[in-house]
Amino acid sequence: MAKLKVHGVSLSPFVRKVLFALAYKEQPYDQVNVFPGDTSDEFSAISPLHKVPVLEDDGFTIPDSSIILRYLEAKYPANPIYPADPQDQARACWLEEYADTRLMECCAGLFRERFLARAFFKREPDEALIATILSETMPPVLDYLESVVQDDGFFLGDHLTVADIGITSAFVSAGYGDFEPNAESHPKLAGYVARATASPIVVARLAEEQAAAASLTG
Amino acid sequence: MAKLKVHGVSLSPFVRKVLFALAYKEQPYDQVNVFPGDTSDEFSAISPLHKVPVLEDDGFTIPDSSIILRYLEAKYPANPIYPADPQDQARACWLEEYADTRLMECCAGLFRERFLARAFFKREPDEALIATILSETMPPVLDYLESVVQDDGFFLGDHLTVADIGITSAFVSAGYGDFEPNAESHPKLAGYVARATASPIVVARLAEEQAAAASLTG
Repeated sequence: MAKLKVHGVSLSPFVRKVLFALAYKEQPYDQVNVFPGDTSDEFSAISPLHKVPVLEDDGFTIPDSSIILRYLEAKYPANPIYPADPQDQARACWLEEYADTRLMECCAGLFRERFLARAFFKREPDEALIATILSETMPPVLDYLESVVQDDGFFLGDHLTVADIGITSAFVSAGYGDFEPNAESHPKLAGYVARATASPIVVARLAEEQAAAASLTG
Repeated sequence: MAKLKVHGVSLSPFVRKVLFALAYKEQPYDQVNVFPGDTSDEFSAISPLHKVPVLEDDGFTIPDSSIILRYLEAKYPANPIYPADPQDQARACWLEEYADTRLMECCAGLFRERFLARAFFKREPDEALIATILSETMPPVLDYLESVVQDDGFFLGDHLTVADIGITSAFVSAGYGDFEPNAESHPKLAGYVARATASPIVVARLAEEQAAAASLTG
């Protein structure tokens, strides 16, 4: 049995952030398939907001993907996911926060309507919402990310950080909704997303997600 | 001119978090009175989500109170606001996050309806919303905090942390809405809030907020 346990389903973009970090830090883990919004007494006790993921480490439990990433860094400092310089670190954390909120609202909306709606909720997609995301909500988000992403390599700096983890996870969710940044309107961002989703850790994670996705759509 | 500059109005609970930390770390600062939701090009450039606070440090700018607190800790490590132990630190950060979200929704609602509504928005309070907060939304939040707060001293551990900063700021906002935890139903939490709001840093901050509050209500 692995020392670490991740509570949360693999298709959650916030669970995915933690699984990316565990892969990058080469830490084995067990996983418990909890859906977001689980209000059971057992899960409420370890996740008062009923959110996934929760990390369990030898009896200690902590919710919130961003706090879990920070905890993993403190416990397993090899392969750091935070820049050492305070300003670079703040920038990386800000981009993680932006990815977790504004970007994720767009990406999770596409994931929900274009993938989960039929596969899991057994309903038709909300086409009006999809159109609003694509024409109104998403474009300024892409413009902002285009303005700050690097021309090559990682999202910022010279190694993988929480910015890459958050932004890549969001675009993986968007990918289930058949969305990727347009290479003509957002060339730097499109190049980044293509690089990130072709990286070995992401490729391996996506292969493992296939089983979870297949269990929903099958 | 101080090296640090805080963009945001003093009555914002998230600005208040940063001002608490700056006081605790004894760092001078200038302040620019920006309201949350400012969509000017100038402010959007430093706060893409149009939120306050933004910290400016010699030309470097960073939004988000939680990220600013972490940055201040890295730049000014004396008087630490994060526990050194990774599990204690994760717990403190989780309580900060809980304060910033679920607790703040309740406290900010009371602040808005019972204080800002008449003073700033020049409208009547939404009494139905106030009743819902007091009877439905807030009680389970208070129950949770009661279950985790210490009997005496700080919210957790043996020195002030981001948990104290977030939770105290939220209850200061609630105080503008004439709310404090009930000593009979939530004795540990009520004791904590009374201790925290009587601490010199909070007393000094509240005195400075009087001017901001008076300018609204005057």
